[in-house]
Amino acid sequence: GQTQRSFKTLTSLMFTCLLSSLIPLLQIDHFGFFEDGTFKQRYLVNDQHWHEEGNPILFYTGNEGDITWFCNNTGFMWDVAEELGAMLVFAEHRYYGESMPFGQDSYKDAKHLNYLTSEQALADFAVLIRELKKTVPGAQDSPVVAIGGSYGGMLSAWMRMKYPNVVVGALAASAPIWQFTDMVPCSVFYKIVTEGFSRNGADCSDSIRKSWSAVDNVSSTEGGLKWLSNEFSLCSPLEKEDVLVFKAWLQETWVNLAMVNYPYEANFLQPLPRWPVQVACTYLQDSSLPDAPLLQGISKAVKMYYNYTGNTQCLRISETATGNLGYLGWYYQACTEMVMPMCTDGVQDMFEPQSWDFEAFSEECYGRFGARPRAQWAGTVYGGKDIGSHSNIVFSNGNLDPWSGGGVTQSFSSNLVAVVIQDGAHHLDLRFNNNYDPSSVLKARALELKYIKMWIEQHSLSNKAAAPCCL
Amino acid sequence: GQTQRSFKTLTSLMFTCLLSSLIPLLQIDHFGFFEDGTFKQRYLVNDQHWHEEGNPILFYTGNEGDITWFCNNTGFMWDVAEELGAMLVFAEHRYYGESMPFGQDSYKDAKHLNYLTSEQALADFAVLIRELKKTVPGAQDSPVVAIGGSYGGMLSAWMRMKYPNVVVGALAASAPIWQFTDMVPCSVFYKIVTEGFSRNGADCSDSIRKSWSAVDNVSSTEGGLKWLSNEFSLCSPLEKEDVLVFKAWLQETWVNLAMVNYPYEANFLQPLPRWPVQVACTYLQDSSLPDAPLLQGISKAVKMYYNYTGNTQCLRISETATGNLGYLGWYYQACTEMVMPMCTDGVQDMFEPQSWDFEAFSEECYGRFGARPRAQWAGTVYGGKDIGSHSNIVFSNGNLDPWSGGGVTQSFSSNLVAVVIQDGAHHLDLRFNNNYDPSSVLKARALELKYIKMWIEQHSLSNKAAAPCCL
Repeated sequence: GQTQRSFKTLTSLMFTCLLSSLIPLLQIDHFGFFEDGTFKQRYLVNDQHWHEEGNPILFYTGNEGDITWFCNNTGFMWDVAEELGAMLVFAEHRYYGESMPFGQDSYKDAKHLNYLTSEQALADFAVLIRELKKTVPGAQDSPVVAIGGSYGGMLSAWMRMKYPNVVVGALAASAPIWQFTDMVPCSVFYKIVTEGFSRNGADCSDSIRKSWSAVDNVSSTEGGLKWLSNEFSLCSPLEKEDVLVFKAWLQETWVNLAMVNYPYEANFLQPLPRWPVQVACTYLQDSSLPDAPLLQGISKAVKMYYNYTGNTQCLRISETATGNLGYLGWYYQACTEMVMPMCTDGVQDMFEPQSWDFEAFSEECYGRFGARPRAQWAGTVYGGKDIGSHSNIVFSNGNLDPWSGGGVTQSFSSNLVAVVIQDGAHHLDLRFNNNYDPSSVLKARALELKYIKMWIEQHSLSNKAAAPCCL
Repeated sequence: GQTQRSFKTLTSLMFTCLLSSLIPLLQIDHFGFFEDGTFKQRYLVNDQHWHEEGNPILFYTGNEGDITWFCNNTGFMWDVAEELGAMLVFAEHRYYGESMPFGQDSYKDAKHLNYLTSEQALADFAVLIRELKKTVPGAQDSPVVAIGGSYGGMLSAWMRMKYPNVVVGALAASAPIWQFTDMVPCSVFYKIVTEGFSRNGADCSDSIRKSWSAVDNVSSTEGGLKWLSNEFSLCSPLEKEDVLVFKAWLQETWVNLAMVNYPYEANFLQPLPRWPVQVACTYLQDSSLPDAPLLQGISKAVKMYYNYTGNTQCLRISETATGNLGYLGWYYQACTEMVMPMCTDGVQDMFEPQSWDFEAFSEECYGRFGARPRAQWAGTVYGGKDIGSHSNIVFSNGNLDPWSGGGVTQSFSSNLVAVVIQDGAHHLDLRFNNNYDPSSVLKARALELKYIKMWIEQHSLSNKAAAPCCL
């Protein structure tokens, strides 16, 4: 296995994410007829293993970012393409990357942002797939499997739920489809973040839990602010009014570290060593330290995240991860339909206590975007916990991934299946095979491949059947 | 059986369609956040048989008209309410009856009409049902069954397809979900209309087939126009330029007659005798007659439709049926997403040959509404013929009903079932039990009730089950 996996990885890296020459014109508004404009959706294809008529298409349901980045970070699809003889398609989500409905004006105001919804994105994918099947010779009867991770995983699951005529099944990796109002406790996310650190010793999470008051204490004087700026190598000196931002930046850093706690060197949100949380925790081994040395440890852990390469000159508290993600777009989506309640209590988790305040959030969203969140809508339109009537979806979650708290981790039936990956972080299973992969993720990928093959087989059987059966 | 049915009918007539006191405020736009306005949806309830917590709710997915009219014409729900201990809910479709998103301005222009779509209507129903379950004491775990006829039947089927979390099953009566582009031949509708007449003798349909040129011949002179106006008791004298409208009015009259060809006196689109097509055909027994006497027969048949009561003073070629239907709204819907190709050849059917011209239709729609139809969208969003993965839907169709040509008349599986009703016209099965009902419709209703009970039972079993089962 080892050799073969290495070989596969090498092969995979020779693949390239190619822009398709066929650029479909999609409706800006699929659900209304007053706005009749169209836009160009970007999508990437690779058909080097797709040699036979009717062979399958693996379709990545792009999430909140540049599609080339997802194309390069979804090795699983490249790794299985040859065995399945599959065409790979990576479709970019509207309002991200280069797929802008109104060009430069797309983010101008609430009116232009109006068509940034998951429903419109799903409709884009459905129309694109039907267009591909119509225009690509040999693809007419090809089964299409939706694949996605994170929000893209939610979209792949919803794609199968809402358009089972278009996709025969879906692999939804690390898809927190239940991270909505009244579905899971708002505390679950940060609790899992915390566990990722405390499993490397209680002192690790305790150090972070104590760091918040340490920051408050130290930043209360001018000298302390200067010391912090210096210690954390901040690009701009920390001001009194930045302290909340500084703490939020630290908090997001720990979240990101938990998400990308992969068993090998990787560069997803940032270039990082293997098991980066473990590495961070080597600097956080004594939570009884006084404020200054405690924060020195925090600083070392943070710099491991932001400067693993050693090339970062200084740190900016306005940035926490890759520029490939569309933060503003996701902020808008979270402010409208993707309302994900989060809270902390400082006891079960290592963060400052913060309750979930929907009203305040709504005000913030209205002030920022001129649009208000609708807390109940996601549950109505996507089924909440009542998804048992659907079929052909595999939900995979890593137990290290904070998003697994809002994920489906128990199977509903033999074709609505949950896979839990021990020692897996955020959609580890979607990444290229790696010699350091734990056996859990190898098993998960094998199972996912088994289901994908089964859906493809079902499709070819149903295509061969005569007329629909009778009463 | 007979006595009991009579009794049931009597009981049913004592029911009343009551306006609910709870008027929900629904989003005008469920799929965007720029238009954040709300509107009041009208819905009617009857809970006289709903005595126990968790008892089922039968939910009529209102179609293109006043909901009280549908409430009074869906006797099936009243007839089964007692046996099921069911609450009845009839929800009005937005932009019809009193459920106007923008009040008097709702039909003002393309901008105001923008939210008149089936997707918005389904979302209204989903939100309303969730609201009811939340607010009506004892309804929290009630299974909800969607029921509808015609476009309302399409909505009930789509409701189950798109919101299986909200409804446990659907009875879709006379729902032409395949009357869209590339799904069935455009000729099928008028062919079935014709068959309804020709089964009463070839002379009947032949007379109608010959009537078009007879009208052309007679209307070519001033005297002929006057004769026609007099013979058909038209309220306004026929002018040369009205001849096309006159012929279209005749054509729609035959269509309506075929649709409401019920086995007993009824008043759906018009008050009519039992088997009205048969009655009409008694005036059309010799297709070899010269133009004038041929048209006299046509006139008698037409008057049977418009003046069965004897109270109609004169006929208006601008009206063909009940005022309870929202013709303008449906015209808009047909001009946008509900594009239903129709054509005639004058050979397989008894009408003047007319091909389906999408471009001309698109121009007509743009001229009328400032919006253009999208021919492919219905197939993409509602699955077209690829609906085999859905469950718990019964599609019923009468073989006399022209809409059955676009309906599902073969079962896909044991829980996606087609029921064909011999001698049944447009959603006969949804009407009150009647002593003249053919045995086919009695069997159909019994089967529908059996399925509804099964869905309710499934729901109560799944509610009793512990956590979702495991891998």
